[in-house]
Amino acid sequence: MAAYTFFFNPMSRAQIARWALHEVGADYDPVFVDWAAKPQALLDANPMGKLPTLVHHTPAGDLAVSEAAAVCHYLAEAERSDLLPTAAERGNYYRWLFFAAGPLEAAVTANAMGWQVPEGREMMAGFGTFERTLDALDQWLSAHDFAAGKRFTMADVYLGSQVDWGLQFRSMPERPGFAAYAERVRARPAYQEAKAIDNALIAAAQAGN
Amino acid sequence: MAAYTFFFNPMSRAQIARWALHEVGADYDPVFVDWAAKPQALLDANPMGKLPTLVHHTPAGDLAVSEAAAVCHYLAEAERSDLLPTAAERGNYYRWLFFAAGPLEAAVTANAMGWQVPEGREMMAGFGTFERTLDALDQWLSAHDFAAGKRFTMADVYLGSQVDWGLQFRSMPERPGFAAYAERVRARPAYQEAKAIDNALIAAAQAGN
Repeated sequence: MAAYTFFFNPMSRAQIARWALHEVGADYDPVFVDWAAKPQALLDANPMGKLPTLVHHTPAGDLAVSEAAAVCHYLAEAERSDLLPTAAERGNYYRWLFFAAGPLEAAVTANAMGWQVPEGREMMAGFGTFERTLDALDQWLSAHDFAAGKRFTMADVYLGSQVDWGLQFRSMPERPGFAAYAERVRARPAYQEAKAIDNALIAAAQAGN
Repeated sequence: MAAYTFFFNPMSRAQIARWALHEVGADYDPVFVDWAAKPQALLDANPMGKLPTLVHHTPAGDLAVSEAAAVCHYLAEAERSDLLPTAAERGNYYRWLFFAAGPLEAAVTANAMGWQVPEGREMMAGFGTFERTLDALDQWLSAHDFAAGKRFTMADVYLGSQVDWGLQFRSMPERPGFAAYAERVRARPAYQEAKAIDNALIAAAQAGN
């Protein structure tokens, strides 16, 4: 049995976790999940049945982790990866990892849904406004190559996926700072390996295989 | 100079960070931020000017961190706190920390704003629905005392704040599992110390001092 069981569907945020698995070189058993028939092993690990869900088989027992950003960071810690931040990088690493999982995701979703934050309630919304949220990220990525600064870290698997998908599905505007960052993260061999697997599975599903 | 400079307003998510500062026993200089006149030192550390923002003064230089959940976890790591998860607790710790910062925050906000996720677009919203998001958390907290399991960790400062505030401001329903968890986290001496400081500042502001 591989060290990890990876519950996924190629048309989901599980793509983020596959990229992370390849970044740390983890050995994993992929389990394709049909939305209409979620396996009991997935529901046992994560009653919501959300993807990605990862089960780590350790000598001390099976450990489950879900939420895409959590899966990324978990893998870096569990595999003692050099993709973890140094003490000097830590502030930026966590800031942008949580910024991507919280305000950025919320702002992009609200914008895509056509939801408006009523004036005077920006603080309740946490992210403030779509424009200010994007501006903050744009300003950082125009001045720094990666989330933690000069070096690619696991935070870029998550933040990079958000920007990559945002540009692809046009839920984020095509700004030069975003486009250049997306190019930098797409150059990762692990991104390309993982993407090739998911794209092949999507193509096969669409061909009715 | 204290090890940390803490930019805050008592009427903000900065309350979460103050609790975290007291949990790790950090020495900090609080800087009250008037929303209408944000100090340049705050904007230098975090151009969005969001609170909380923390600046850590280290021998290697000043390190900034923002996003409430990131501040909590940063403090646990920087202070090598026993509030960090063990290897066995890690999956649950990160899962609930990111669940609270992502889907829970987004679902509570959307519900408070009266935003509806159109049928068939639940996957785009990430959190699915308000009810399912609350059910997942309720199920966990009814079966486990804390985010990581049996023991209070830094994830409970963030998740606990979300539940504490959610019940107080009625943005989350009063369910027995949530109420009992809120009581458990409110019993922390560091919660009470931090809350007393913020409550006194709010009372003074309301009295016009």
